Amino acid sequence: MKKRAIRIGVMGGSTTGNKGRRLAEAVGRRIAEKGAILVCGGLGGIMEAAAKGAKEAGGTVVGILPGDDEKEANEYIDIPIITGMGHARNVINVKTSHVIIAIQGESGTISEIALSLKCGKPVIVLDSWRLDKIGCTDTNLHVAHTPEEAVEKAFKLAECV
Amino acid sequence: MKKRAIRIGVMGGSTTGNKGRRLAEAVGRRIAEKGAILVCGGLGGIMEAAAKGAKEAGGTVVGILPGDDEKEANEYIDIPIITGMGHARNVINVKTSHVIIAIQGESGTISEIALSLKCGKPVIVLDSWRLDKIGCTDTNLHVAHTPEEAVEKAFKLAECV
Amino acid sequence: MKKRAIRIGVMGGSTTGNKGRRLAEAVGRRIAEKGAILVCGGLGGIMEAAAKGAKEAGGTVVGILPGDDEKEANEYIDIPIITGMGHARNVINVKTSHVIIAIQGESGTISEIALSLKCGKPVIVLDSWRLDKIGCTDTNLHVAHTPEEAVEKAFKLAECV
Amino acid sequence: MKKRAIRIGVMGGSTTGNKGRRLAEAVGRRIAEKGAILVCGGLGGIMEAAAKGAKEAGGTVVGILPGDDEKEANEYIDIPIITGMGHARNVINVKTSHVIIAIQGESGTISEIALSLKCGKPVIVLDSWRLDKIGCTDTNLHVAHTPEEAVEKAFKLAECV
Repeated sequence: MKKRAIRIGVMGGSTTGNKGRRLAEAVGRRIAEKGAILVCGGLGGIMEAAAKGAKEAGGTVVGILPGDDEKEANEYIDIPIITGMGHARNVINVKTSHVIIAIQGESGTISEIALSLKCGKPVIVLDSWRLDKIGCTDTNLHVAHTPEEAVEKAFKLAECV
Repeated sequence: MKKRAIRIGVMGGSTTGNKGRRLAEAVGRRIAEKGAILVCGGLGGIMEAAAKGAKEAGGTVVGILPGDDEKEANEYIDIPIITGMGHARNVINVKTSHVIIAIQGESGTISEIALSLKCGKPVIVLDSWRLDKIGCTDTNLHVAHTPEEAVEKAFKLAECV
Repeated sequence: MKKRAIRIGVMGGSTTGNKGRRLAEAVGRRIAEKGAILVCGGLGGIMEAAAKGAKEAGGTVVGILPGDDEKEANEYIDIPIITGMGHARNVINVKTSHVIIAIQGESGTISEIALSLKCGKPVIVLDSWRLDKIGCTDTNLHVAHTPEEAVEKAFKLAECV
Repeated sequence: MKKRAIRIGVMGGSTTGNKGRRLAEAVGRRIAEKGAILVCGGLGGIMEAAAKGAKEAGGTVVGILPGDDEKEANEYIDIPIITGMGHARNVINVKTSHVIIAIQGESGTISEIALSLKCGKPVIVLDSWRLDKIGCTDTNLHVAHTPEEAVEKAFKLAECV
């Protein structure tokens, strides 16, 4: 049996500015170039930018949607997973990914970073919430400063999962 | 934007005999040959046979798993979606698929057939439960007698969704 | 430790006619009179009638809601559980109840009856879908002809769970 | 129609030390004394201590369980809600509560605090994670220094929801 492709989740807000979009697109592109499947929440903002980067590099993008309607998926999603479960779908995002990269974001992204840790899943924060600065010492929490570093770390961690 | 591939769900029990395996494999193969993505519950029995048929025809197979561990996926699953939600994952199977084909099965499959109807999603039963015979008049309930007929109907219905 | 109260789930459509309302109200009343907690989906129709019957007899009613808003609960619900998970909440209804009574209903109710069986939970059908007539031989499937008989059976079965 | 009781969620780890137990028990007791229903995750540690406090003061305790088995509920739970959905049940905890009090905890509790904010639900942290110290300015995030202050704030906030 052929080994399955690595799955890397990209988490972040559904709206973002130019910097976030640039970071997410670069992350998505590198994920696809290195042969992993991109998993995301399927909506706009960081999710859309990462999906765009991955698609333009010929990758496969899974979007795990909160609502009931495929139409809420951004145009770069190849495989929408339609959960109809609202925020509970974040758990599926985390469990489905071998490693998570969190980019910027608001409270939803904090929740996803912490949920990754709770699930024992490595998470790399890029221009995002630094839970280590308020005492979180979980060894699955990693920090990256560039998209390249984030993806590099993600692949290294995925190979150990 | 390129139109997304049709997604056809195949539901049925996690154990089955030779006839069920043969039906499911033929259904999976036809789904892949005609270019749709196969969505299933990712486990053994009907799910595994359908996935095998689709993979051997070069298709893509999504397995929406009930548990927390990728290892429960059968070997033909390309993209395991790890829900950790038990039977609640059946709702995601139904919502993610444009059309459902139900093959044989026990009470779990009855539940999925009825859930498809509840969600307003067309479902085709093949050697499976005939809810029409106890008064279910839902127009989304269809009967097929061969794998070919089932897949033929599925594509026609998917194009109308 | 004081033993917890028995929990009996009442399933059925969110709209119903006079007969359904009468059956559900009588079932809810008997459940409360005999000291069990009523679990239901929290909406209208059969769920509301059963909840009304239970409340009027001084019982406790739990309503496991599909949506995000407590306002969708009917007025007889003491404890709304707000899932935001749509149909996936039916799984919680089934798992939370020691025994299920299904009254009338459409495809959603068929799905819940079958889901109960799949979960190995006794289910009593009252003026509802007769899966035994299409070959379902699951010994957890019971038939009742009156509200009194349904509740009588439910308590007997709950004591064996 | 009689107004429903306020529901206050208490979140925290499933193991804790003496201080955590003391805080949680005092919080639970005050919640019950003031007439609200206590909602928690139903397991040990902070959840059990809060439930104990509430029960001893004559309150009602709902435990929204991650697993499939009522036996995992602590002995102070009146109404176990059995989700079988693992961490996804945290979303139900948050949505079901009018206000959340988070006590101590690890990454799971961070996730719940952030999830409350994401859901637009007030959350009061007591000897717990200070997301405000890493830039979270959400006005639904409140800090309390004693159990009394936490419950006082919770009731004030619940009345505004």
